[in-house]
Amino acid sequence: MSARRVRVVITSPLEDEFLDRIRAVDPRLELDVPHDLLAEPRYPSDHPLPTLDGAQARERWEALLDEAEVLFDFGPLELAPTLAQRPKLRWIQATSSGVGRLVGRVGLRDSSVAVTTASGVHARPLAEFALLALLMFGKRTLELVADQRARRWQRHAGEELRGKTVCVVGLGKVGCEVARLARAFDMRVVGTVRAVRGRTAEELGVDRLEGPEGLDDLLGEADAVVLAAPDTSETRALLDARRLGLMKRDAVLVNVGRGSLVDERALVEALRSGHLRGAALDVFEREPLPPESPLWDLPNVFVSPHSASTVAQENARITGLFCANLRRYLDGEPLVNLLDPERGY
Amino acid sequence: MSARRVRVVITSPLEDEFLDRIRAVDPRLELDVPHDLLAEPRYPSDHPLPTLDGAQARERWEALLDEAEVLFDFGPLELAPTLAQRPKLRWIQATSSGVGRLVGRVGLRDSSVAVTTASGVHARPLAEFALLALLMFGKRTLELVADQRARRWQRHAGEELRGKTVCVVGLGKVGCEVARLARAFDMRVVGTVRAVRGRTAEELGVDRLEGPEGLDDLLGEADAVVLAAPDTSETRALLDARRLGLMKRDAVLVNVGRGSLVDERALVEALRSGHLRGAALDVFEREPLPPESPLWDLPNVFVSPHSASTVAQENARITGLFCANLRRYLDGEPLVNLLDPERGY
Repeated sequence: MSARRVRVVITSPLEDEFLDRIRAVDPRLELDVPHDLLAEPRYPSDHPLPTLDGAQARERWEALLDEAEVLFDFGPLELAPTLAQRPKLRWIQATSSGVGRLVGRVGLRDSSVAVTTASGVHARPLAEFALLALLMFGKRTLELVADQRARRWQRHAGEELRGKTVCVVGLGKVGCEVARLARAFDMRVVGTVRAVRGRTAEELGVDRLEGPEGLDDLLGEADAVVLAAPDTSETRALLDARRLGLMKRDAVLVNVGRGSLVDERALVEALRSGHLRGAALDVFEREPLPPESPLWDLPNVFVSPHSASTVAQENARITGLFCANLRRYLDGEPLVNLLDPERGY
Repeated sequence: MSARRVRVVITSPLEDEFLDRIRAVDPRLELDVPHDLLAEPRYPSDHPLPTLDGAQARERWEALLDEAEVLFDFGPLELAPTLAQRPKLRWIQATSSGVGRLVGRVGLRDSSVAVTTASGVHARPLAEFALLALLMFGKRTLELVADQRARRWQRHAGEELRGKTVCVVGLGKVGCEVARLARAFDMRVVGTVRAVRGRTAEELGVDRLEGPEGLDDLLGEADAVVLAAPDTSETRALLDARRLGLMKRDAVLVNVGRGSLVDERALVEALRSGHLRGAALDVFEREPLPPESPLWDLPNVFVSPHSASTVAQENARITGLFCANLRRYLDGEPLVNLLDPERGY
């Protein structure tokens, strides 16, 4: 075994127990944790960016990046465009999945630096959010909360998910988990992938599988549409006015993918006109959602502040993934969750 | 085949297609549907009581009941106490499950009139409500709705159901369906039945099964408690101040059983003090929930107006059950869903 040291710089906050787990992977690892420069997490598993105050802080970061072979998270965005030029940097482990655009913006797309994503870590919490949203609209939860605040006791008939059709746009790890849970409720599940490439509906656990060209057709048969696709040039404004119009009257939209997938202005129109029953949105064209957005006030919209993927257990899972990848890195094996720069995720 | 006619009186509103399905069961059936006396349904599958306005209406009902061999629903409550004395009445098909107390109150408990319940019809919608409630508290939905109304974008970490323990009190048809869905989310499920009688946890699809004497113990290990038990002398105020105190701090309560199961005053205290994280209640000690109840205003309570069991498909299912039972009745076979007057459900 070579005596070579591998410097790992941790650039977003991580609990001590997880830092210890990372150190325990191999004695060759040398962890740099610039505690004084990292921002305070605002909630468990928060990954805030460090903000470099003053020349001294910036200088220290520059020095850390110059020595780093591995980064946990991208570090300060102001220095990210310089990552491709760092002499020793070989690999960055991201803490989210859809980092393709960021990687392009900071010039890492064609560099030799490997980027691995947190793909899979957020599948369960996002799928739970999607099911929450489907159940909420079935059981008229937003109306009931409004009734409650007005002390109004108004009996009604709700709906069951059983027998309804949900269309999952993007049957990746998140989308397949949505499909699995939806089927536990006896929903019919249809969905799309970027490229079918010989995969079958059965393999992905759905009742009907289409490529992007089949989306228009699926929209017309779905009682609910769940967006679980990444932000790529192919998905931008995927759900525009025309496609929103193809959705069934009284259908529900859930977005746990990216805000860029939806033409928000057209969505507001479809929600106001009553064409759609409602929308549950965890992601938006602009985040934080601007105070002037009409989405805040629409009675049939549930706004979630891009937190549906965040659960207390997230850092434990990302650490597990990182440790497994460190092992592979040291052993010269291929990393898992390697970003595909072509696809962007 | 005898030419005997069987008079069936429909005493709560049912759609024409379902009346036709009932008629189609057998040519011996003679359906009486006093359309002019039945109340208008306020929502799909509503079963409002007829209110008898004036002597003439009452006279007509009396005559109908005197000729009825089978009743669909109990009819006007003011005449229910006379049902045990109707000369030709043999069987009443109820449209809900927990009718034991009503049957006792109107003197049918020891009569020869058979009562069948709608047990099973409401299992899925109630189980969906329970899962909605568990997901809501995991994802902080009530706080998010309040944040939204205040246009507040506040990121946070939610929770996953995976790995949490739910205790289902009353593993009947509703409770077992709650258990099945909770397991799809990888929850650990424990629960109680009125009498174990040799059944195993595995048979009921749970991880731990106890009789009523084991409840105290289970409450201490549950992150959420779902009440799915009927109103009987054994379940009244089952969740009193002492047992609420046994629940884990920050645990969640869901009641889809009966309001009488919970000491509401003690529950309000446990919710105000922060001992419990929250409660989702579809049933209450008094219904409609009185305007002065503090439950309306507690920020950690979700009030549902005893409608969680009602879905548009309900009448179709009750009709299916009734038709199957009519077939058995005419063929002299034992009815299904026969009320056990001892148990009360």
